[in-house]
Amino acid sequence: MNNSISYKVAVVCWLVLITSFIQAGELPLANAERMKNRIIALSHFGKNVHGGVDRTAFSDADISGRAYISALMRDAGLDVHIDYAGNIIGRRAGTQPLFAPIMFGSHTDSVPGGGNYDGDVGVIGALEAIELLNTGNIVTRHPLEMIVFADEEGSMVGNMALVGIFSADALSNGSSSGFTLGDGVDRIGGDQTKIKQARRSTPIHAFVELHIEQGGFLDEKSLDIGIVEGIVGIHWWDVVVKGVANHGGTTPMPGRRDALVAASKLVIGINDRATTMPGRQVATVGKIQAFPGAPNVIPGKVEFSLEIRDLETEKINQVFEVIKGEARAVEEEMNVEITFEALTPHLRPAPTDVRIRRLIEQSVSTLDLSYQHMPSGAGHDAQNMAPITPTGMIFVPSRGGISHSPMEYTAPHDMANGADVLLRTILKLDETEFE
Amino acid sequence: MNNSISYKVAVVCWLVLITSFIQAGELPLANAERMKNRIIALSHFGKNVHGGVDRTAFSDADISGRAYISALMRDAGLDVHIDYAGNIIGRRAGTQPLFAPIMFGSHTDSVPGGGNYDGDVGVIGALEAIELLNTGNIVTRHPLEMIVFADEEGSMVGNMALVGIFSADALSNGSSSGFTLGDGVDRIGGDQTKIKQARRSTPIHAFVELHIEQGGFLDEKSLDIGIVEGIVGIHWWDVVVKGVANHGGTTPMPGRRDALVAASKLVIGINDRATTMPGRQVATVGKIQAFPGAPNVIPGKVEFSLEIRDLETEKINQVFEVIKGEARAVEEEMNVEITFEALTPHLRPAPTDVRIRRLIEQSVSTLDLSYQHMPSGAGHDAQNMAPITPTGMIFVPSRGGISHSPMEYTAPHDMANGADVLLRTILKLDETEFE
Repeated sequence: MNNSISYKVAVVCWLVLITSFIQAGELPLANAERMKNRIIALSHFGKNVHGGVDRTAFSDADISGRAYISALMRDAGLDVHIDYAGNIIGRRAGTQPLFAPIMFGSHTDSVPGGGNYDGDVGVIGALEAIELLNTGNIVTRHPLEMIVFADEEGSMVGNMALVGIFSADALSNGSSSGFTLGDGVDRIGGDQTKIKQARRSTPIHAFVELHIEQGGFLDEKSLDIGIVEGIVGIHWWDVVVKGVANHGGTTPMPGRRDALVAASKLVIGINDRATTMPGRQVATVGKIQAFPGAPNVIPGKVEFSLEIRDLETEKINQVFEVIKGEARAVEEEMNVEITFEALTPHLRPAPTDVRIRRLIEQSVSTLDLSYQHMPSGAGHDAQNMAPITPTGMIFVPSRGGISHSPMEYTAPHDMANGADVLLRTILKLDETEFE
Repeated sequence: MNNSISYKVAVVCWLVLITSFIQAGELPLANAERMKNRIIALSHFGKNVHGGVDRTAFSDADISGRAYISALMRDAGLDVHIDYAGNIIGRRAGTQPLFAPIMFGSHTDSVPGGGNYDGDVGVIGALEAIELLNTGNIVTRHPLEMIVFADEEGSMVGNMALVGIFSADALSNGSSSGFTLGDGVDRIGGDQTKIKQARRSTPIHAFVELHIEQGGFLDEKSLDIGIVEGIVGIHWWDVVVKGVANHGGTTPMPGRRDALVAASKLVIGINDRATTMPGRQVATVGKIQAFPGAPNVIPGKVEFSLEIRDLETEKINQVFEVIKGEARAVEEEMNVEITFEALTPHLRPAPTDVRIRRLIEQSVSTLDLSYQHMPSGAGHDAQNMAPITPTGMIFVPSRGGISHSPMEYTAPHDMANGADVLLRTILKLDETEFE
């Protein structure tokens, strides 16, 4: 038996083995208790008095949290290194060393005053998949790479450098931790002087990210899994309403050109139109300021933010046109002037790979879990991976839809479901050849 | 002829003389050119690049402006002194030294970025009345006191100390100039350690203030003079709207409890109700803030200011009740919670003396000027004088109703009309015995 034949036999045996494992549901199942305990352990790094974490990228807490995860990765037998951008990558060899790796993971940095599940569930879930492969003595064909991205909540320096869209000019930008991005990257084990080399020049077979939904859709509908259709695009504008400032005591009510009354009409118009148009678009005014901003002066100018998100850029443009129509009506009614300044860069929608969605769906069905296809309204590491490799994303429920808050919570059995779906999707990807 | 008889003869002669002067319209008329030139000269102290002044109380510019006015007062023969609160008082003796003085004047301090007419016209007009008395060789029975109040635009320390309602506790409060009130009072020639003694313990016969309207009523109706019925009362509230903050991307439009959308509905409700209720009340929302205030977060809380003004406290309360009704409706519709915190102290309405209004009306008629009775929507030194002495107030037009701005303007002939009315009112007051 020459090498080539023995190899072919081995592959066939392996495929039969894996397929029977999956079909018989004999793959080991995720350990919800272990995942919960690891979430709790991770939550100690940067813990704040509200029960959440302040573990912004590059902070001491971030460094400690990453050290904890790296140790677990090594314990699970991964070959761990940190790339020049500060991403932690743990490699598990496949039977075919030259095959492109299957990559999966998320992040462990938090927003200021964040919770214990955003990003963390994806990392602990990726680790759980590795543990299960170890338990089952399963070796994939493709090498596997578990990744913990650097600075997802800030500038996304990790995933941007990895896909080659990070500009070195941004190294001098600040971050929530107080360090520049460059110094931050150095602090977490990267090397800002070589950050360009963090770019992956060899293909990645696929990327899959497990994440909490951060919205209330799954929780409300009592669904186990969300199969993400894509990460929505986001467009921002600064809106300025110009009326006439005047004395709040000496200017009679009729004839006032109050910029805040006009802005209020537009805020309501934006909310109403985004709510009643067909589709799943969202539009938010989160910030507002009146000028001069004194209780006894009729505002002459109001500035507010406008954000529109949708899975399709076309739809975002449609919603904006409708909002501009509302603005024209307010201008006419209130004798004010309203301008929109588009902020760059807009974030383009990042659709996930429809073939991976199908594999996730099959995995979910094997496990008898309930699911629904849905957009991701929030940004994720996956959004920058999608343009360079087939990308998929798995959501598990967020209780009450609360996120970026110490109140953030995902139940252990939901985390375990996520890890189980992730593992099965990885194994199906291992069998799949993309064109 | 004994003293008593000679005195009575003198009084009769004097009355005949003055009455004939007024009736024949033979009193000298104000010199518009001189008033204009004095306004221009005063505008140099604290002049800013926009053509207005930054002459906040206690600033170097305020001190220089006051020195200029004091010099003019001395040139006009007044016996000038500064009281312990920093008010400049110029006394002109009357034939009856024991009679209570007739007081008139205004202020020369400005708001930051103010104009050249607010307060200044009242001071230059008071000086003009003195000049005309000098020209006509007229000596009144009552002593006259021209007054330049300290710090009208800030804390009203001058008029409050004079009427005895200034609390020494406030001496450590800050001011726009950067100095504490106490240090500010010392800087302009007062004495903070003796400020309690600035209180007038002897009666004042009457107080009259000439001022620009600061609103657009007279200008719009092409009227020469406004006879002020009173200074409106002002009530303030901090309004808090509580909804639920959430992720702007992951939270679908239906079911959002957006505090800013709710606040917008209330802002519109306040404006609509204050506009459509019968009466001359005004209600203003001048300041607003959304929390957490990020473009991608649905506001969970909005705080805004509410100010209601009217000549009657009763009416202010009525308007507030109507607004509270609007708030209850918004709470119900939007599933939010709205609270109103009343700020103290409210400013009580300060009605002017109806007898003085009549004297002003007679003076206006003598001069063949057009006029209307009207409230003052803005606060003035007169508001604190009204409770201690019969008080009157004369308005002249503000072009376009613009005030507290470098664009503030009152034409020379309007200033002159104001000074003419002021002088005639002073002379009528000199003949009037109040009960």
